[in-house]
Amino acid sequence: MPVFLDSAAPDFETAFASLLGAKREDAPDVDDTVAAIIADVRARGDAAVIELTARFDGLDLTADRLAFSAGDIARAVDDVSDEDRAALELAAARIRAYHKRQMPADESWTDDTGAMLGWRWTPVSAAGLYVPGGLASYPSSVLMNAIPAKVAGVGRLAIAVPTPRGEVNPLVLLAARLAGVDEIYRIGGAQAIAALAYGTATIAPVDKITGPGNAYVAAAKRRVFGKVGIDMIAGPSEILVIADADNDPDWIALDLLSQAEHDESAQSILISDDAGFGRAVARAVDARLETLDRAAIAGASWRDFGAIVTVRDLDEAARLSNRIAPEHLELCVADPETLAGKCTHAGAIFLGQWTPEAIGDYVGGPNHVLPTARSARFSSGLSVMDFLKRTTLARMTPQALRAIGPAAERLARSESLMAHGQSVTARLDKLNG
Amino acid sequence: MPVFLDSAAPDFETAFASLLGAKREDAPDVDDTVAAIIADVRARGDAAVIELTARFDGLDLTADRLAFSAGDIARAVDDVSDEDRAALELAAARIRAYHKRQMPADESWTDDTGAMLGWRWTPVSAAGLYVPGGLASYPSSVLMNAIPAKVAGVGRLAIAVPTPRGEVNPLVLLAARLAGVDEIYRIGGAQAIAALAYGTATIAPVDKITGPGNAYVAAAKRRVFGKVGIDMIAGPSEILVIADADNDPDWIALDLLSQAEHDESAQSILISDDAGFGRAVARAVDARLETLDRAAIAGASWRDFGAIVTVRDLDEAARLSNRIAPEHLELCVADPETLAGKCTHAGAIFLGQWTPEAIGDYVGGPNHVLPTARSARFSSGLSVMDFLKRTTLARMTPQALRAIGPAAERLARSESLMAHGQSVTARLDKLNG
Repeated sequence: MPVFLDSAAPDFETAFASLLGAKREDAPDVDDTVAAIIADVRARGDAAVIELTARFDGLDLTADRLAFSAGDIARAVDDVSDEDRAALELAAARIRAYHKRQMPADESWTDDTGAMLGWRWTPVSAAGLYVPGGLASYPSSVLMNAIPAKVAGVGRLAIAVPTPRGEVNPLVLLAARLAGVDEIYRIGGAQAIAALAYGTATIAPVDKITGPGNAYVAAAKRRVFGKVGIDMIAGPSEILVIADADNDPDWIALDLLSQAEHDESAQSILISDDAGFGRAVARAVDARLETLDRAAIAGASWRDFGAIVTVRDLDEAARLSNRIAPEHLELCVADPETLAGKCTHAGAIFLGQWTPEAIGDYVGGPNHVLPTARSARFSSGLSVMDFLKRTTLARMTPQALRAIGPAAERLARSESLMAHGQSVTARLDKLNG
Repeated sequence: MPVFLDSAAPDFETAFASLLGAKREDAPDVDDTVAAIIADVRARGDAAVIELTARFDGLDLTADRLAFSAGDIARAVDDVSDEDRAALELAAARIRAYHKRQMPADESWTDDTGAMLGWRWTPVSAAGLYVPGGLASYPSSVLMNAIPAKVAGVGRLAIAVPTPRGEVNPLVLLAARLAGVDEIYRIGGAQAIAALAYGTATIAPVDKITGPGNAYVAAAKRRVFGKVGIDMIAGPSEILVIADADNDPDWIALDLLSQAEHDESAQSILISDDAGFGRAVARAVDARLETLDRAAIAGASWRDFGAIVTVRDLDEAARLSNRIAPEHLELCVADPETLAGKCTHAGAIFLGQWTPEAIGDYVGGPNHVLPTARSARFSSGLSVMDFLKRTTLARMTPQALRAIGPAAERLARSESLMAHGQSVTARLDKLNG
């Protein structure tokens, strides 16, 4: 049973705070293990990666088989059905179109002193994309990571995907090909992150690493942060649906379950201004649960972390949503645009009852790599910006330096930085002398 | 003596690689200490912060004196000279004008299926700015952190600045006032980062923490990353000057020294296509060094990490610059714009001989918080974007869902995510039935 809350109840604040604070992931402390793995890969390169892959993935590799060959990829891709291929191609085209619009513009202007100011965007040279293996090996995630990088203009993309006992999802390889990536390594875990960050004889180092992963991958990304850029430390997925009574409970139940079926630690929350509708959704969840292949996972998530909250009105729903700062926010109400304007912290918003969250996972166009665990308070989903960096530009003229140089000299002196000040005054002396 | 390199020498590649790889900061491993401090502040709040401030800063506080009072601030600000105030005001106005231009636009459009797509930017609700105490307590850094946050629309800004034995730079408080920040705490180190991230009875938690700091602050920021957002892990400062022989060696020497005087671990590098000019700059550095208040610091930096590199031509200079990925890049050449176009990895570029880097530290307008230690390969200087986050938006119509829903259903099935697929097909069934 999920928890039922009512914002009019006297103990609501306590119960809601406890929902917000629930520790959903029993993250093991793997930091020491990960530190040792990274040190090993830095010291021994390919040999360490090969040993660790044998130990953790049960797969024997040699240096020349770390990467999939063109033949490996072609054979796997040939196995994909035409229908699956067409669906992936539609998704890739829509994701590409959306992300192309994100490309920021360079700017430059001349101010009233005659100084030229501005900035310029350039892509990172090389990026590594981590793709989890096993159950969570999603071809859609390959598209969501690789396409923004390609749109940004990243020159080299390398994918790391563990293949436990040699198993790989051929759709993952096809997604890589559709995104234009042909450098794909059969490695995973902290050893893959270390190899991408520091390089080995076979794997050239990258500048940025993105993509989800387990606790080892997350700890490794945190450790290599600074040596390379990373996207975020992702936690288990969440959805918040705000729905009024004018919805089909079954649709809302499926939307909640489509988050719950990801992971036992996923969280699905419904907020409604109608208690009876909330109960109807709960019954619909129970009915649908029995039919799912992943009933055990979805059931555990719904039982342990699911919640149905009744509120007085939609303004209150928006206020609670902002405290949750959900990764996915679905607004199934009569006027979703107005409600969206009040929901200021969310990774992605799905407006109206014809926009199930699953559309955003695959073919909507926006990215499905989104901030979890309340981090939508301060961070954004993956975008082309993650693969670009900005260089600021400034060019003074003699006239501009005359206008603003003395203030710089004064501030440098106040900070006891003499050479800073003299670098300005030496030039001003020349102008004045 | 700095190192002299010549790109035509047979051992150049080895020497340049060694320059790139030089470990400049002997960062102590303070991670365990920092973990204990954070745990203590989480457990005991204000009491822990007060004890740690007494221990590390020699300052006895009470909970009601953690923050500067309005009277404290007014008294300190009154001590500032009119000239210093005017210089800070000029800097604040120029920084504000530059950063206002960075504000990104919201977008929304309707695609050919009838789906509405887009995104929206919103500010973080609360940000904490760390300002180092002592020697490195720079009022300019207050402006560079606080103004982008204010321009982004951050509702609440809190500054933490340690005041060893009670000492504070009044210009720091004035800079805070000019930037519109009046919540200022007399605390520093890992305890300040922990208090900002987790909150105490007196200090409300924030969503994002920015600002430079020592090894303890850096380790604490790395640890709280995820609970809150952080800007970057900053290392010691660097400058690369590319200059041809048509420059005054004294100006270039001062530009190199204005980086060296920051820190013994700072690094100043000159690349020139004229070996004689390089030697002239080296002599000018020696002459200027003797006159600096911070001669010991600047001298150690120049001796240990300074370098003068002779190259065959400016294209080679650009290639080496891209391997260095400098925080600050000064281009003192006849056509700096063309050279800048070839320098793809740099935090900030200063074009032409009338643009000493120090202008960018104070009054140019661009931010002076910039990526160090080669991280300009993948990251950018501080900007309004650090205080904003993007929410993606999608609204399907029945027609749009008909057009793209089947592909989503197909991909959901390929990933064994039944509820995802059913959330789409339940809606399509309604449309079709």
